[in-house]
Amino acid sequence: MTKILRFTVEDVRFPTSKDLTGSDAIHTDPDYSATYVTVFTSDSNLEGYGIAFTIGKGNDIVAECIKHFFPIFENMDLENLENEIGKYWFKCVDHSQLRWLGPEKGVVHMAVAALFNSFWDLIAKKNKKPLWQFVVESEPEKIINWLTFKYIEDVLNPEQALQILNKSQSEKKIRIDSILNEGYPSYTTAAGWLGYSDDKIVDLCKKYISMGWRHFKVKVGLDLEADVKRLELIRKTIGDDCHIMVDANQQWSVTKSIEHINAYKKFNLLFVEEPTSPDDILGFVKIKKAVGDVRLATGEACGGRVMFKQFLESGSMNVCQIDSCRLASINEILTVMLMAHKFNVPIFPHAGGVGLCEYVQHLCMIDYVLINGDKNNKFVEYSDQLHEHFIYPCTLKNGNYMPPLDHGYSIEMKKESVTEFSYPNGNYWKNNK
Amino acid sequence: MTKILRFTVEDVRFPTSKDLTGSDAIHTDPDYSATYVTVFTSDSNLEGYGIAFTIGKGNDIVAECIKHFFPIFENMDLENLENEIGKYWFKCVDHSQLRWLGPEKGVVHMAVAALFNSFWDLIAKKNKKPLWQFVVESEPEKIINWLTFKYIEDVLNPEQALQILNKSQSEKKIRIDSILNEGYPSYTTAAGWLGYSDDKIVDLCKKYISMGWRHFKVKVGLDLEADVKRLELIRKTIGDDCHIMVDANQQWSVTKSIEHINAYKKFNLLFVEEPTSPDDILGFVKIKKAVGDVRLATGEACGGRVMFKQFLESGSMNVCQIDSCRLASINEILTVMLMAHKFNVPIFPHAGGVGLCEYVQHLCMIDYVLINGDKNNKFVEYSDQLHEHFIYPCTLKNGNYMPPLDHGYSIEMKKESVTEFSYPNGNYWKNNK
Repeated sequence: MTKILRFTVEDVRFPTSKDLTGSDAIHTDPDYSATYVTVFTSDSNLEGYGIAFTIGKGNDIVAECIKHFFPIFENMDLENLENEIGKYWFKCVDHSQLRWLGPEKGVVHMAVAALFNSFWDLIAKKNKKPLWQFVVESEPEKIINWLTFKYIEDVLNPEQALQILNKSQSEKKIRIDSILNEGYPSYTTAAGWLGYSDDKIVDLCKKYISMGWRHFKVKVGLDLEADVKRLELIRKTIGDDCHIMVDANQQWSVTKSIEHINAYKKFNLLFVEEPTSPDDILGFVKIKKAVGDVRLATGEACGGRVMFKQFLESGSMNVCQIDSCRLASINEILTVMLMAHKFNVPIFPHAGGVGLCEYVQHLCMIDYVLINGDKNNKFVEYSDQLHEHFIYPCTLKNGNYMPPLDHGYSIEMKKESVTEFSYPNGNYWKNNK
Repeated sequence: MTKILRFTVEDVRFPTSKDLTGSDAIHTDPDYSATYVTVFTSDSNLEGYGIAFTIGKGNDIVAECIKHFFPIFENMDLENLENEIGKYWFKCVDHSQLRWLGPEKGVVHMAVAALFNSFWDLIAKKNKKPLWQFVVESEPEKIINWLTFKYIEDVLNPEQALQILNKSQSEKKIRIDSILNEGYPSYTTAAGWLGYSDDKIVDLCKKYISMGWRHFKVKVGLDLEADVKRLELIRKTIGDDCHIMVDANQQWSVTKSIEHINAYKKFNLLFVEEPTSPDDILGFVKIKKAVGDVRLATGEACGGRVMFKQFLESGSMNVCQIDSCRLASINEILTVMLMAHKFNVPIFPHAGGVGLCEYVQHLCMIDYVLINGDKNNKFVEYSDQLHEHFIYPCTLKNGNYMPPLDHGYSIEMKKESVTEFSYPNGNYWKNNK
């Protein structure tokens, strides 16, 4: 019998603001950071790792919040946790006192995400499988028990969810073979951060084309004229066979969104991401009405399943960008994937951060094998940064994410990276105050 | 020249879960708590006090978060803060790194609320007025500079806001005289907490009727039959001349909301509060369509102005329940009041908590004098708890809030209360582990 013994949580921050990696119209100086949870068990060979992703200040706040949940799980049988994970998950996201700080959004929700990301890592390892494989090979009835349908039953109830899961059972083997052979397509954000010079952008576009990428995301939003010039430069560099999507990172009002998106029409964009507030469902509806067939993307800053429900049902979220560390781990991610499937909206998981590529490589496999069965014209974000700090970094072949084969959820960091970049007492931060 | 010198923040918790005061269908064991900020200045007679309200665990998290903002203001001229308060406020709610934890919602937003509540207290005291009076006597152009219209311009722009403020200028004197004489009407929640016995409810209803109240709010949500019985009991006790409203505290799905609300129709309720998730704008629209002229109330758990914008524009928020500690202080509260006025939706501020009555006594005066000019059929929540801990507790006459006359925003606590209930090292908590 394996027991959960104790937890640690580290505030790990990488100084990405120094070279403007990750910079955009609103997040002008992000230090990509991870609230890094380790769960230790009575089996010295079995540890779980999980993160929440933040962009610097506030990583400590999420870390503090996670600690409130530890007493619930200390000394718990791992078997009990695995069997009742849906119940324990709901107990945390709906905690009778902490929910006042949300409910089910923001710091507390991200804390639950980090914690349950570590539990899913642990459970997959206990079952000696990579997480995506553990999930897709679980019984549909068991999966339903991981989820909550609270507040979303008007759009998706357990019976409908079970139906979707059951439908894919007979196709699973073929789908698994397909991803093992081909992987899952990605797009790259690495060439288009807002702080980069024109020369740097051209060089990076060429580099990523030579490595197999055909889909490029570009940050926009500070100045319409400059954005158009930058898009012309990129179009000239990558040619007409490649695709561009843009990301405004919440910069505009509803009116400004419409003006900008209509000005970009000549670039035939694959989507426009986060034109305005990530909470403005009705604003997105107004924008969508005014821009015709341009697809709107959002979700990385979307607090939880209730917001996704509305964006999806309203028809204003045309590309669904789940975030593995803002949604409260696998339990909530699956409900959002099921709702997106119901509304026929493709999932393009968010991965511009630290550790997010390591997570989304599992999520796209789960979406494809367990739920959707279609990976044509779907692309997962890829960002070529900070992978060197992970023991099981994601692998890409010709622009495709290859399914991870190591056991767990792939987020364990190298000990020396944690030591170096722990904030504020790691070597890096001590020497660079 | 007065300078801001330094800050302290205390985690103050009152053990209200012991007698189930504040209990409802979802918040089963609240310990009413305040993240209590003090700002000290170079004038030893001038200090500012502010709180965020929470319900126990997590009060510490908000306190930790507030500390991140202190360095921005240490050594700042108070005059500079007063003149540029809109700019500094936006710098905080839109902080380039902390915004990732929201944006503009949850812990970070509540931290900004507490901090700016302390600043508004300070500024009102510097100007030797109660806060409501300082606000209503400020020039409309000056007030506009306190606000942001980011993300709400499709519904309210600065020119429209200015028009509303200008329109009330000629009426202000009459309105001020009216509230000084009559006060502002309230309703009471004190009789209807979910944990109370029938006898206790009857006794409390009688007590509050004898004190002048005619409007009673009752918690519902766990069991439809029990709720109907309780409502019958209360109707029998208070008679047909009094009014009942119910509060479900987010307990139901959309479908269940419709079922319950229709079952309550015979009680001719003044409103139904928080039937479902406070984020579910489109869910509220569905409910509103199905329940006809029953008014839906929500807002106390509504993260920020973007959510209010949508609830108000959609017609599904028929009573607007702003919270003085969840909205980011006066700067954001005013924009929500202005939007509610535009859509002709009455403001019924939330006050079931600690210190909230002390805050809302200012807010209703501001709404009436500066914006709305009508207080017929409008009622501010009143909850008869924990006022003994405040130096300037609210005053009610015949069920009406009387306008506070002391300088500031009325939230200074007695030193002995802070000492006794500081968590975890105050005497009370040391002796009751």
